[in-house]
Parts: sequence; structure tokens; C-alpha cells
Amino acid sequence: MTVRQLHLNLFIYPDGHHEAAWRRPESQPERITDITYYQELAQRAEAAKFDAVFFADGPALADNIRYAARGGLEPITKMTAIAAATERIGVIGTSSTTYNEPYNLARQFASLDHLSNGRVGWNIVTTSSAAAAHNFGLDAHPAHAQRYERAEEFLDVVTKLWDSWEDDAVLADRESGVYADTDKIHRIDHEGRHFSVAGPLNAPRSPQGRPVYVQAGSSEDGRSFAARWAEAIFTAHQTLENAQEFYADIKARARSVGRDPEGLKVLPGISPFIGSTAAEARALEEEFNDLTQPAYSLKQLSNLVGVDLTAYDLDGPFPTEVVAPVGDRAFHSRSQLVLDIVARESPTIRQLCHRLAGARGHRVVAGTPVDIADTIQEWAERGAADGFNVMPPWLPGGIDVFIDEVVPLLRERGLFRTEYTGTTLREHLGLDRPASQYAPTPQKETA
Amino acid sequence: MTVRQLHLNLFIYPDGHHEAAWRRPESQPERITDITYYQELAQRAEAAKFDAVFFADGPALADNIRYAARGGLEPITKMTAIAAATERIGVIGTSSTTYNEPYNLARQFASLDHLSNGRVGWNIVTTSSAAAAHNFGLDAHPAHAQRYERAEEFLDVVTKLWDSWEDDAVLADRESGVYADTDKIHRIDHEGRHFSVAGPLNAPRSPQGRPVYVQAGSSEDGRSFAARWAEAIFTAHQTLENAQEFYADIKARARSVGRDPEGLKVLPGISPFIGSTAAEARALEEEFNDLTQPAYSLKQLSNLVGVDLTAYDLDGPFPTEVVAPVGDRAFHSRSQLVLDIVARESPTIRQLCHRLAGARGHRVVAGTPVDIADTIQEWAERGAADGFNVMPPWLPGGIDVFIDEVVPLLRERGLFRTEYTGTTLREHLGLDRPASQYAPTPQKETA
Ligand SMILES: Cc1cc2nc3c(=O)[nH]c(=O)nc-3n(C[C@H](O)[C@H](O)[C@H](O)COP(=O)(O)O)c2cc1C
Ligand SMILES: Cc1cc2nc3c(=O)[nH]c(=O)nc-3n(C[C@H](O)[C@H](O)[C@H](O)COP(=O)(O)O)c2cc1C
Repeated sequence: MTVRQLHLNLFIYPDGHHEAAWRRPESQPERITDITYYQELAQRAEAAKFDAVFFADGPALADNIRYAARGGLEPITKMTAIAAATERIGVIGTSSTTYNEPYNLARQFASLDHLSNGRVGWNIVTTSSAAAAHNFGLDAHPAHAQRYERAEEFLDVVTKLWDSWEDDAVLADRESGVYADTDKIHRIDHEGRHFSVAGPLNAPRSPQGRPVYVQAGSSEDGRSFAARWAEAIFTAHQTLENAQEFYADIKARARSVGRDPEGLKVLPGISPFIGSTAAEARALEEEFNDLTQPAYSLKQLSNLVGVDLTAYDLDGPFPTEVVAPVGDRAFHSRSQLVLDIVARESPTIRQLCHRLAGARGHRVVAGTPVDIADTIQEWAERGAADGFNVMPPWLPGGIDVFIDEVVPLLRERGLFRTEYTGTTLREHLGLDRPASQYAPTPQKETA
Repeated sequence: MTVRQLHLNLFIYPDGHHEAAWRRPESQPERITDITYYQELAQRAEAAKFDAVFFADGPALADNIRYAARGGLEPITKMTAIAAATERIGVIGTSSTTYNEPYNLARQFASLDHLSNGRVGWNIVTTSSAAAAHNFGLDAHPAHAQRYERAEEFLDVVTKLWDSWEDDAVLADRESGVYADTDKIHRIDHEGRHFSVAGPLNAPRSPQGRPVYVQAGSSEDGRSFAARWAEAIFTAHQTLENAQEFYADIKARARSVGRDPEGLKVLPGISPFIGSTAAEARALEEEFNDLTQPAYSLKQLSNLVGVDLTAYDLDGPFPTEVVAPVGDRAFHSRSQLVLDIVARESPTIRQLCHRLAGARGHRVVAGTPVDIADTIQEWAERGAADGFNVMPPWLPGGIDVFIDEVVPLLRERGLFRTEYTGTTLREHLGLDRPASQYAPTPQKETA
């Protein structure tokens, strides 16, 4: 069998990804700020040999907190506490290039990579929530293209900072009194349109050299950015065809900038409702959907399409004619995904809300463990995915079902590891450790 | 006996506070980025019932890294990993009001307070290292007065953010589907000279309400700032008289702004060289001083006094006539402290370097355990301190000697706890938990 092994991350969302999960009897919304809740989830994923846990983030409060369990722990601290409670699993967290200073972000991720012994990944985003702007002294969220332009320079700066100490800069020679070979610690002297940063970083190079560069953003700009920088890309697709198109496109883009496409893993989200029969699984999904609240779902949908939908009949058709152009929205790829569903399925507004309730646009699959494993295998074998961000509709239980029922099937089919073979996240993902751009090239060394 | 109990923090500096500690055979400089090193130190301090561990910080690499073991883990991540490995001890870390965005800082400290169950303190600084400016797009470090002006507004903003959720805002009512009472979650709509921040914070109010506000900065501006905001102040004094003057002044300033001076604890640093005889302790200090390197010590001293001293005779007198005015320096209080030593003792440059090598200007005491305990008791009884930041010259061993030899004497004298009585850092320090400024006042509630 030539199928390569898949990568699986557990994407942890407080009470699960379904927007009504917190209302279910088995949910634990009171633990949303309890770090042991997240540590325990990570430990379960580690016991199942997942590549990593994954966290989304945005620096603003969701504006519909009345109806949704949101507002909890911040990712850097959450990731650190998880790293401290685990040994092998990777820890990937989202941070924004729009609302951080590169020096501060570089320090924290370098420190996390040190203290986790090389298990950290950075999910790079430009921030989808326009409300963030008002928490950072801006009148408005910068335009999509401007955000990606800043992201580009941001990556240049932090990469230089993470490279600024060569791997062998620390000597700690008690006898001579020389702690560091300062010829191997480099100022970066970056001067650009958005940033001017002298460096060097105030920390030695970390075990992975740099955190693993994960990226989330699938628009035209997002894809070019990912092709240049990303080592893994998290993406949302409703259909196999869309996912295949995306996969082929992103790998081609990587190739066209001179990269080995193997160095850029494509990881769509998948949200599994699992039952002992397909009917049971679908009934479970419906139970969840019945707990959704239109005041919440409509607000989410209205944000995505740029039109206030509250005046429309929930059971009437989606008013395609009034929606704002995707290019005016903050989150191009997700707005497009919603319009694609409308074009394909002509749902009522309520049906569309239910389609998005499970995982905000990611693929929701309701079925038996075999159905779920089949879908995963199909996407993997037909060029749509190198792995998945698993997004349980509810937590903590929803990941247990997946681990107990689906993971064994994937193992039987040779699709998923039974033991970790490496210790770093790069090793789990099959990614090389990058050399410092300031290190002498091998040629120079032998000259 | 009416003596109140003292507060003791362990101030962790990588290999100890003496600048040459890393060159000693018992040092572990290879563990500077190993989180277990810091976790173990915190666990020892916790076993000895210390109030907290404490970390300094600055967002720039020390410019004399060739000769000093510097450049390690970043405080937020280090503090989190320590919180995850301990249960009761407080964790205080330094973050700058000059080089952070208030929304980002507020999130991380709130998250830390949640995940430590109320054990976090923020050491507020405006940053002493002028080099930091060049890592944040600035041509120069803002002037001292400007930094404190920004700090003032920064504190206003983050305090509002930490108060923005009333304590009982989360309902998590599954039945009605209401997660949060949005009447109890407040926008802050701050518009000021430096910041414009809408809020609310995207996290519920934390166990302590806010992190404990610790402050380090003892200039005129620093003192006024502390009088308004600080709940504990970390300060450096060479003599009992100076410490008494400072203590009386800071308590008077707190009173004059309408605060209970008991709510502002004064914690000078103390760096103990402990021997079984005073002569042995002094010999140990000399051994350390013999390992200092003039290239390093002179650079530190030159930075503080604003004059390049490398051309001067090390064994000649300190050239008082050429030093820059304190008001031109970044770190007023420390520059003044150095000039005071010169005025008092007329040391040679080398002698001055040795005076500062142990703890960068904090009081170094070499003596028997009884001598150390006597000094601590004298400062406490004669109105110079509510407690101390203990700064072992070397680590990890230097804190063990203090815990084994000095702490029992303090306990015998009724000066230090034998068991924790509370669970939060506020409780350890005897500080009240602040109410949210947005919460209805008790009057309103009963009206
Ligand atoms: C699968 C996926 C996940 C994302 N997760 C986040 C997130 O956690 N936080 C966030 O601010 N933005 C997130 N984004 C959006 C990014 O911020 C992105 O930089 C921006 O909104 C533009 O997205 P686009 O390139 O798809 O238009 C995500 C995007 C995708 C496709
Ligand atoms: C005891 C003490 C400790 C300090 N620790 C730090 C520190 O860890 N990082 C830092 O940037 N500044 C530190 N500072 C200095 C502060 O940044 C301060 O805001 C600024 O330099 C002005 O200090 P001043 O008010 O004493 O002049 C410290 C100051 C004192 C007095």
C-alpha cells in the first residue's frame, strides 16, 4: 500500500465546534477558563498519537457572547500550560500578524519552542474579526490586501529574529569567561514599510529553529502567502472537489516559488458526528441543530456575507441578490464558501444556518465510524488532504468517540501512526529543520 | 511581639544575581532555556512558603552577552509553565508599558491569573534598556517622563479591561440558551493621548480580579506612579537610611492620594552571601568578585552613568566630574544610587564595579545566617521594608542555603510564615481583591 500516513490535529474549541454544544447536558462550560480541561484534552490526543492540538484566536470579544460560550484563555498561556503537561504532542496556536509586534511575538514563540522541547507551531493569521481594530487604536480593520502585505513583512522580520542566533552561538566557557560567541549572534537591522527592528532576539535559537509555520487563510492573497511561508495550511472545504482544487493549487504555487510541495502540508477541517448507524449520527446532528439560536446564527452569517439578515424570513430563500461582494469582506475565503453552498444547494436561511452551525463552514460528516474513516481516506487518496484538523462537535466526549472508533480503523488501513517516531512537531509532520539564514553555508565551511 | 510577618519573593536570575555566577563550577548555564530549571527553583521556594517567584525582563538583548549568561526564556511563558508546576506560590513577572499593546498584555495576564487560580503579579516597568526602542520601530527610547505618562494611561486602560466583565457575568444557562449576561460585560471605550481601546476584554474576570500590581522604578516619577497604582514596589537600596527614607516617602504618597498605605508593600532587594563565619562569607563574595570581567562590569557601569569609562584607570578614582546628569539617563534611581555610593565611599572604579557585581545595586550582605536574619529583621522593624525580594548570588544552590539556614531563624523570630494561609497571591501579600469599577456599588444594590 502506497498511501502515506496522515496527520491529525485536535482543534480544541471550548465546548466543541458546534455552536450549541455548550447547551448539551454533557458539556462543561464552567471549565472554559480551567486549564486542566485543556490539558486533559491534549493528554487524550497525545495518548492517541495525534500530531498536535490546535487553537484558533482573535484579539476581540465575539459580539454574540450572549448566546455562545466564548471568551476564555489566551493561546500563548494555554499552549504553554499544555506543553508543561504533555511530552510529545505538538501545540499549535493562532497569533495575528496584524495586531502584534514582531519582536514580542518572536520572543514568546521561541520561548515556547524551548520549553516544549521543539513542539510548537504558529498558526499565522491576519485576523478575521474586524472588531479587533478598535482594541488597537485603529478606526477600522486594515483592508484584506494591506493585512497580507504586513503579514509578508512580519514573516520576514520574525524569521530573521528566530535565525539571529546561530545554533552554536552559546559557548558558556567558564574558564575564558566567554558566554556567547557574539560573531554568531546577528543584528537583523530590518528596515521596511511596516517595521524597523534591529534585533537580535534575546534568546538562543530554539530546538526547531523556528516554530512550524502553519497558516489559515485561503483567499487568493492567502494562498500566495502560504505558498511562500507556510509549512502546513489549515483550510475549510465543503466538497471533495473544492478541496482537491485547493490542494492542487497550493502545491503548484509552492512548486512555482521553488519549494518542495512536500514541505507544505494541507490540512482541511473535519467535524464528525459519529453514531452506530448513519441514521443515529444524523439524528444526533439534528439534536444539536435544534439547540441553535437564530439570534446567534444569523449574526454570524450576516457578518460573513455583509448583510443584516435579521429582517428576512428564516424559512425563506437566502437573498443572494443583496449580499456584499466577497472582496469587501474581511474573510474572503469563508464568505465565498458560504456563497458556494447557496449556489449549489439553494438552502433556506435556516438550512444555511444549520449547515454552518457545526463547524463554521468546515466539512461536517455524520455517519458510522466506517463512514468517517472512508471520507478521511477518500480525501487523502484523492489528493485533497495530507491530514486533518479534527473538530469535534462537542467536547470533551466528541474526541473520545473519534479516538476510540475512528482512529483504530485508520490504523488498520495504514493511514495513521501507532507510535510517535520523533519528538518535535517538525518530526511528527515530516518537515525539515531550517538552517539559520545567518549560518555559514556548508560550502563556505569547507572552503 | 508586634512585628508583622514579612513577605519573601525569590527573584530568579538565570545563574544567580552575581554577574560572574555562571563561571562558578556549581552553576548550570546550559539550563538557561530549560524550563525544569525554573520550575524546580519555584518548587523549592514554594516548599519554603515564599510569597512568590519574581522575574525581571526587557525586550532587547543585553549588549554584553559575550561575558554574561543572558538571553533566555520570556516571562509570560516562563510564568505559565511555573504556575502549571506549582500550587500555591505566587508568580510575578515583568512586562513593559512602553513596548506592549494594553489589549495583548491584559489578555495574557488575565489568562495567567485564571490558569494559576489567582497567583499572578505583574511587575510594571517602563523599560530601562534604551536598546529596546530599536526593536519596536522607534529611533530612540522615549524620555523618562514620557514613558511614565504612557504608563499612567496604560494602567488606566488595562484596569478597565480587567474590570470589563463583572464577576457574575457568566450564566451558562443551558435551558434559556443565555451564556453571558451582556449587561454585565462592558465596553471600556477608552480614548486617550496614547491609546484608544474599545474593549471589552475577551475573557471573564479572573480570580484575583486583576493581577497584583507590582512596580519597579524609584525615581520621582516612579514614586508618584507607584503611589497611585502599585500594590507592591520592588526597590534597590544600599543603606538602611535610604531604604527608610524611601519607605516613609512611598507610604506618605499613598496616603496623600487617599490610599491605605498597608495596600502598598515595600520590598527591597537583598542578595545574601552566607557563610558559617562572617569571614567565610566575605571570602566567598571575593571569590565571586575575582571572576568578574572588567569588559562586562565597566560596560554596565558606563551605561548607568552615561559615560564611557573604559579609558579610565580601573584602580583610579571614579571620575565624578564627567558623569551625565541623572535626569538624562534612562534609569534615574539606579544612576542616583551609583552616585550616592561614590559620594559616600569614594571607591576606585574597580571597587565600584565589585560593589555592583553582586546584585546590580541592590544590597549585598555577606555574613552568617544570624547576620542575614538580623539585617532582615532590622530593616523590617525600623521601617525600611514590608518584605524582600531575595536575590541569591548564585543559583540553584544559593536559595537552598537561604532556605535552610536563614528562613528557620526568621520563623523563630515570628517574622515568616510556616504555612500558607491563603491560596492567591493577594492573600499571601495581605491585599484586598478589588471590585470591578463597572459593578454596581453596594448602595445601588440595596436601593
Ligand atoms: C481555516 C481557517 C481558519 C482561520 N482561523 C482564524 C483564526 O483562528 N483567527 C483569525 O483571526 N482568523 C482566522 N482565519 C482567517 C485569517 O485571519 C485570514 O488571515 C483572514 O481573515 C483572511 O482570510 P482569507 O485569506 O481566507 O480571506 C482563518 C481562516 C481559515 C481559512
Ligand atoms: C528595583 C528595580 C527593578 C527594575 N526592574 C526592571 C526590569 O526588570 N526591567 C526593566 O526594563 N526595568 C526595570 N526597572 C526600571 C524600570 O523600567 C523603570 O520603569 C525605569 O527604568 C525608570 O526607573 P526609575 O523610575 O527608577 O528611574 C527596575 C527598576 C527598579 C528600581
